[in-house]
Amino acid sequence: MKQYSAEILCVGTELLLGDIINTNAVFLSRELSKMGISVYHQTVVGDNPDRLREAFCLAWSRSDIVITSGGLGPTYDDLTKEIICQCLELPLVADEPSMKEIENYFARRGREMTENNRKQAMVPQGGIALRNPRGTAPGIYVETEEKRLVMLPGPPKEFEPLFLQAAKPLLEKLSGKVYISDTIYVYGLGEASSESRLLDLMTVSKNPTLAPYAKEGEVHLRVTSSADTEEEAHRMNRDMIAKVRERIGDYIYGINAVNLETVLAGKLMEKGCTLSVAESCTGGLLSKRMTDIPGISSVYLGGVCTYTNEMKVKVLGVRQETLERYGAVSEEVAGEMASGIASVSGSDLALSITGIAGPGGGRPEKPVGTVCLGVWYRGKLYTERVQFGEKASREYIRTLSASKALFLGMAAVDEKLKNKE
Amino acid sequence: MKQYSAEILCVGTELLLGDIINTNAVFLSRELSKMGISVYHQTVVGDNPDRLREAFCLAWSRSDIVITSGGLGPTYDDLTKEIICQCLELPLVADEPSMKEIENYFARRGREMTENNRKQAMVPQGGIALRNPRGTAPGIYVETEEKRLVMLPGPPKEFEPLFLQAAKPLLEKLSGKVYISDTIYVYGLGEASSESRLLDLMTVSKNPTLAPYAKEGEVHLRVTSSADTEEEAHRMNRDMIAKVRERIGDYIYGINAVNLETVLAGKLMEKGCTLSVAESCTGGLLSKRMTDIPGISSVYLGGVCTYTNEMKVKVLGVRQETLERYGAVSEEVAGEMASGIASVSGSDLALSITGIAGPGGGRPEKPVGTVCLGVWYRGKLYTERVQFGEKASREYIRTLSASKALFLGMAAVDEKLKNKE
Repeated sequence: MKQYSAEILCVGTELLLGDIINTNAVFLSRELSKMGISVYHQTVVGDNPDRLREAFCLAWSRSDIVITSGGLGPTYDDLTKEIICQCLELPLVADEPSMKEIENYFARRGREMTENNRKQAMVPQGGIALRNPRGTAPGIYVETEEKRLVMLPGPPKEFEPLFLQAAKPLLEKLSGKVYISDTIYVYGLGEASSESRLLDLMTVSKNPTLAPYAKEGEVHLRVTSSADTEEEAHRMNRDMIAKVRERIGDYIYGINAVNLETVLAGKLMEKGCTLSVAESCTGGLLSKRMTDIPGISSVYLGGVCTYTNEMKVKVLGVRQETLERYGAVSEEVAGEMASGIASVSGSDLALSITGIAGPGGGRPEKPVGTVCLGVWYRGKLYTERVQFGEKASREYIRTLSASKALFLGMAAVDEKLKNKE
Repeated sequence: MKQYSAEILCVGTELLLGDIINTNAVFLSRELSKMGISVYHQTVVGDNPDRLREAFCLAWSRSDIVITSGGLGPTYDDLTKEIICQCLELPLVADEPSMKEIENYFARRGREMTENNRKQAMVPQGGIALRNPRGTAPGIYVETEEKRLVMLPGPPKEFEPLFLQAAKPLLEKLSGKVYISDTIYVYGLGEASSESRLLDLMTVSKNPTLAPYAKEGEVHLRVTSSADTEEEAHRMNRDMIAKVRERIGDYIYGINAVNLETVLAGKLMEKGCTLSVAESCTGGLLSKRMTDIPGISSVYLGGVCTYTNEMKVKVLGVRQETLERYGAVSEEVAGEMASGIASVSGSDLALSITGIAGPGGGRPEKPVGTVCLGVWYRGKLYTERVQFGEKASREYIRTLSASKALFLGMAAVDEKLKNKE
């Protein structure tokens, strides 16, 4: 199979000023690499005709596939299409469906359509307009005997779906294969451990490929198969996922999941089970993450952030004696916080976190990164003490503590926790 | 004054695979633009000798300043320095202070130093080694009659401080000027309104320059002066800040501030004033933002996230009657939430938020984006209803609601709120 090379050419002065991050380049690089296409160059130039021309000609001369982002808008400094068509000596012709769509867009809004808007519906002769559901500028696809050119609008909200829906299927035809990816979400196993347990699958297997992405205490394993049909690629992915599950199944919390909180929310909704939380060092982060989810109010009752001992006693009913004997950061206090918020809220599941997020507050017996968690589930209590690295940042400790609580919450609902009482 | 052109050349296969975002390019583009240097190209190539050579030669031929990132490490695929020195026909010589430093680094760790590590201390003849306090690879600066070359290590934790501390002062010499930037933090005035009130300062003034950056309900105005001395540049910035203050002073909450929560925390600490919060739609976000700040436990007592009416009544003492008469999203309930949490926690200042973050839950009289806020400060109560756009996302509404509460908190502590009771 021929190895195709690609170049990403992003056009926009705001990128050169550092006003925006080039997320299109990272998105596209990842997508193309999943498809087995090698990206050898990423280039950024401003809205400048000469430099754009120079950059495009160079890209076109050295790469099989050139994908541009930006400069398709209606204003005078949107030049990508015009300059590239000059380079390729392709006349621009009106694409009737696009023209119709832009006319409708303006008619619906009762606004007048100008010549500049009309310009957006022009495509190079022989090219294909890629319908853009999120904006007025269509993308453009041009195929020559040897090369492929894709031009997409710059805003990521238009760029990303337009690539996936319209451009990707056209590029897949190059190899005659379809590419399907699934992501295995892993919690509680570091990147190094994942790699050592899966090394042969990661290195030996070329189709499907298995690639790890480390992300704040989690590892996401991307499985990508290429095959003649979607069905075949899905089947190959399923086989690989089964192999991975055999080795590290206990750590897998979802396939193509969004994140831990979304998976926990799904389990709660499925079982009709309500949740409340009590936090100290995470300061509301756990509650915030649960309430990021639209519609969570059907299962989430609320939370308390008790940053002082007084509030732990007053709001959660933690005993003064427990605080004095074991200290605020202890499994005992975590347990009383969990049962306390369960009693206040009447929830089925309650999660608690108390710890030392630093940078101050560490002591020899409880250094920075010491975190105690409590899980109360329908009358049963589980607690655990964990130790994040002393060098870990406040943000990292807080994020990982909330993640750990969410993971324990899932285990509780799945009746997989060994309860202490 | 000559206008210098710069090109940013980032080296690293992980960028081309989309595994990491190119934050160095955005950081450097912004820094160079503050210094009045025009970035005309950003280029990314992988750890490939031929493509790196081609990209460097092109950059060196067309730009006054070339800055590279990445490829200075000790491994076999770290090639940047070697390839570029071949292009420039400069021999590599050992830099004694760097060699000493790397030797010490390994001696301290009791690890053996290999030939590869030694390679890191080599610099092009006539070049300057830039001391890297965060890693073993020094940066390199080369000056020719017409051009400047800076090579920096790829990890942003090394790249950013090394650029600011070592490379920036050397590049400033090009123009014989120093560049000083200050940022004015503005809340409650959109980008368009800021621009219309400051348009002449933004467009006419070339030194200092005044540039707006919109950021989630805030506008950050960057003032940059170039002058012969730091003192002079600071004075020019102060004058510009004074002019901006005359026009939009009510909306400015800090100069070179970190964010709203940090400024509020500073005011609370200064006045020895404690804080607690009660949240509904923001679900813990306000509490989370306050507790992002290390050491906040000296003034922050805690918070409650009451996602149900029952919890509002039970934990905060909101009256059932108020809930029934005005609804959970009302100024009346916001007020009772604020005074309720103040009473539970005993804090001097209490902030509350209740609203409809969507996407569900909107009604004609209270559409998505309706948010009511309460501020209780030492016995005085203030409430306000705001309406964020119905099209705004859940995340946007939540972020802006928390920001609004923080801003009102500042106004309360500064005794600038007109209280209702």
